[in-house]
Amino acid sequence: MLIHLDRRSGSPLYAQIVNYVRQLIETDVLKPGVKLPATRELAVDLGVDRATIVAAYDELVAQGFATAHVGQGTFVAAQLPGAAPLHEDSTDGKSLPGEINWRQCFSRAARINADWRPPDVSAHRAQGETISFAGGMPDSSLFPINAFRQVMNEVLRTEGKALLQYSPASGYPPLRRYLADYLVRKGIIVTDADILIVNGSQQGLDLVARTLLDPGDRVVVEGPSYPGALQIFRAYQSEVLTVPVGSDGIRRDILEGVMHRLAPKCIYVMPTFQNPTGATVSLEGRRELLAIAAKAQVPIIEDDFHHELRYDGAPVIPLRGLDRKGLVIAIGTFSKILFPGLRVGWIIAPPEVMERLIIAKRASDFHTSALIQAAIYHFCRRRLLDRHMERMRLEYRRRRDTLMQGLSRHCPPNVTWTHPQGGFSLLLTLPSGLDTQSLLPEAASAGVLYTPGTLFYADGGGRNQLRLSFSEVPAEQIEAGVQRLSSVIEAALQSGRRLRSVERQEGPPLV
Amino acid sequence: MLIHLDRRSGSPLYAQIVNYVRQLIETDVLKPGVKLPATRELAVDLGVDRATIVAAYDELVAQGFATAHVGQGTFVAAQLPGAAPLHEDSTDGKSLPGEINWRQCFSRAARINADWRPPDVSAHRAQGETISFAGGMPDSSLFPINAFRQVMNEVLRTEGKALLQYSPASGYPPLRRYLADYLVRKGIIVTDADILIVNGSQQGLDLVARTLLDPGDRVVVEGPSYPGALQIFRAYQSEVLTVPVGSDGIRRDILEGVMHRLAPKCIYVMPTFQNPTGATVSLEGRRELLAIAAKAQVPIIEDDFHHELRYDGAPVIPLRGLDRKGLVIAIGTFSKILFPGLRVGWIIAPPEVMERLIIAKRASDFHTSALIQAAIYHFCRRRLLDRHMERMRLEYRRRRDTLMQGLSRHCPPNVTWTHPQGGFSLLLTLPSGLDTQSLLPEAASAGVLYTPGTLFYADGGGRNQLRLSFSEVPAEQIEAGVQRLSSVIEAALQSGRRLRSVERQEGPPLV
Repeated sequence: MLIHLDRRSGSPLYAQIVNYVRQLIETDVLKPGVKLPATRELAVDLGVDRATIVAAYDELVAQGFATAHVGQGTFVAAQLPGAAPLHEDSTDGKSLPGEINWRQCFSRAARINADWRPPDVSAHRAQGETISFAGGMPDSSLFPINAFRQVMNEVLRTEGKALLQYSPASGYPPLRRYLADYLVRKGIIVTDADILIVNGSQQGLDLVARTLLDPGDRVVVEGPSYPGALQIFRAYQSEVLTVPVGSDGIRRDILEGVMHRLAPKCIYVMPTFQNPTGATVSLEGRRELLAIAAKAQVPIIEDDFHHELRYDGAPVIPLRGLDRKGLVIAIGTFSKILFPGLRVGWIIAPPEVMERLIIAKRASDFHTSALIQAAIYHFCRRRLLDRHMERMRLEYRRRRDTLMQGLSRHCPPNVTWTHPQGGFSLLLTLPSGLDTQSLLPEAASAGVLYTPGTLFYADGGGRNQLRLSFSEVPAEQIEAGVQRLSSVIEAALQSGRRLRSVERQEGPPLV
Repeated sequence: MLIHLDRRSGSPLYAQIVNYVRQLIETDVLKPGVKLPATRELAVDLGVDRATIVAAYDELVAQGFATAHVGQGTFVAAQLPGAAPLHEDSTDGKSLPGEINWRQCFSRAARINADWRPPDVSAHRAQGETISFAGGMPDSSLFPINAFRQVMNEVLRTEGKALLQYSPASGYPPLRRYLADYLVRKGIIVTDADILIVNGSQQGLDLVARTLLDPGDRVVVEGPSYPGALQIFRAYQSEVLTVPVGSDGIRRDILEGVMHRLAPKCIYVMPTFQNPTGATVSLEGRRELLAIAAKAQVPIIEDDFHHELRYDGAPVIPLRGLDRKGLVIAIGTFSKILFPGLRVGWIIAPPEVMERLIIAKRASDFHTSALIQAAIYHFCRRRLLDRHMERMRLEYRRRRDTLMQGLSRHCPPNVTWTHPQGGFSLLLTLPSGLDTQSLLPEAASAGVLYTPGTLFYADGGGRNQLRLSFSEVPAEQIEAGVQRLSSVIEAALQSGRRLRSVERQEGPPLV
């Protein structure tokens, strides 16, 4: 039993002990009939004279909270004295329900969120031999852990005192400066003042949504799009408008009509290696997109989460780099190119928006851990990130190539897929009769997992689609995984069976 | 110049270089007239034959994007070929405004937040000799940095791979289990499933507000209360109802009438060492508070941010420990008892609420850094937190005592202050004619800082009050600080002067 005794207080020690033990009894921490610690032991634990404990126990017995049994010790009384007012609410004579009705307490956002229950493929992951294309995360076996550990050690040694204290909401200044330089490589010219450090791109999106969206506002998203973004827009009670993705990214011809007819508040796009299709918008396409947004005076939220992970072709400058109207808010992250678990990303925004975003960041959680930010900064500054990305590009390219070859070799006719030049995933489209959500348990039984397509659509599309993420699957296993998947698809095509959807459990995020 | 070349792509290297340099030129990264890198240097940088660069430059010249000057090198053309469509939006023949009108884009929450501009006392902090009672944070010179560094090193070595990957939204399981045990010491019986790990109590509050509050909902707060909470409730467009704090915490007699007349959605309180007063609600007072909330069927948000930092008297069990109706959502944090910069805290909530909170946490930022959570867990498990808290209690008690003695000795008559039994701060009340916000620049000139009282009130109260935080001021400086403050107050009492308020700049959060 741990009791904080205050030797300088006016209250005698035995009375402090009585008071504390009474509270423990009255609050059921010590239950009726439980034996109290032996007086000798408790005296040692608390560093007091044994007589103090004896006096405290005597008092508890006198007050009716304990009973003493000679030779056995002191016990919490089976029947407590008096009726503690908090157990019954008879203040106004009426009996009240025992518990609060939480359902009536929840906000609309909380109710909307609770309705959204995506299937969690991680429920199936336990099986040892399963090959999972469902991840969407970088492969942790490639993580440069030792190098990061050394940097962290150094950073704590030299800057620990400052880094463990509160720090500015906008971020660790050297990391913001580093990012300003780093972004030039992508073709984005900004200063550190244009950059806000956040807890990964998910928080980036949340803060942007909070800053732009009122309930009922319309948001254009790609179909398919990133489920985490769809969830955020739903939670902010937006009306989500889906514009399909073609081989050159979001369909500008359709977007133009949507802008004209429905006057959305903003456009959310992933122009580079779109999740889940892997599609990349060409330079011309980007210009069209910017022109459409500029004409409508509507901001674009550009989610640029793994621009660096390109395996073929020449890089295309992000929308933010091409934007001359100041209408692009760009979100980036270290989650895909370094470690997802650190939860560090950034937002690039025009000054007026930045001012609001910093206020929103401060209200949300003050700031992102400065210790983690400093460790990332020093890791980058030593060019360890560049080196790591080089390794990842080679390895992920190999995996993508193996996957594409496997699909060509094994997939039944009428199955098509996208051809990403980078990123982590591609989208497979089955003949329209099949439902990939219903097929998932069969796939799991066959030892292969994927993410069903419906998760990526706000409008109910994608039933016959599925995402294959190759980033986490060792190249040697990819062909076997494709073979299993192909067999499942073939069997389904032959039987035409539909299966129930799987249940939801907590697991890692869908990324 | 850094160009990612893809040697396996179908596109020849020189064409890749042309394409990239063109993009840099068209997007103003390379401005007209700028000299391109010498062919020899760029060839070395990119690891290609010099002829490849020469071919690329020739092509750029041929396309009109560059000009060659024999003996001087190649330069970006002064006049670029063609009209890049993104510089002018003449698609519909009308000229459009050059920039987006962001003011029309902001959400109501963003507009409300931007209106709230508390003075930032950190603007005054630069002066070397200033004694600042304005902090509200733990003293970083007491931080056990080396111990933490060793734990971090160990954790990265043994669990790095898993900790740097995505992890569950609810938190690092061993830390949740540890907290369940730890909370028993305070008199709170919960299991790990009742605990959600968040980025400090600020995010805890934000997630709870998001889960409970719709625009227009009423929230009861203490007057005075914590500014960070007031900001959150405002941002969620709540109507904030202020109930005054007496010597035994929030005034239950007034609260009862407010509950009856105004039917608030929830009650936000700090029952232990309230910020800024330091007031603690007695056990009887807590029971009254719970009975009032239970009768009204209204949840209580209990902010219990430094319960452990008690210097006198016996600890009182938190509301959450006394709650038998399941109506208390409790928020705790490692920020005051360990390191604020790590941004780790927790929420304890009934199962129905917890389910919603986890969804909200996942949508906000997936999860709190598992690396930081694991480091805290191992730090605690080795009893290093207990040892650290013991040291802090001794030191902060000394500071509080010195402050109280200094106030008794130096303060003009008619100045009163609260008497906290723990925590970091007390509240000083000056004669009602004085305005502590206006006095702040004079205090800063005299070399002492405090936090003006108005910041802690949602209803405009506190003009003649100020908070003194003793946690960051070395005991040796406290009396001098009090003397300076007393002189400023005395001078103001004599002159009756009012001064303008200070301007806002970004600094660390107001805590």
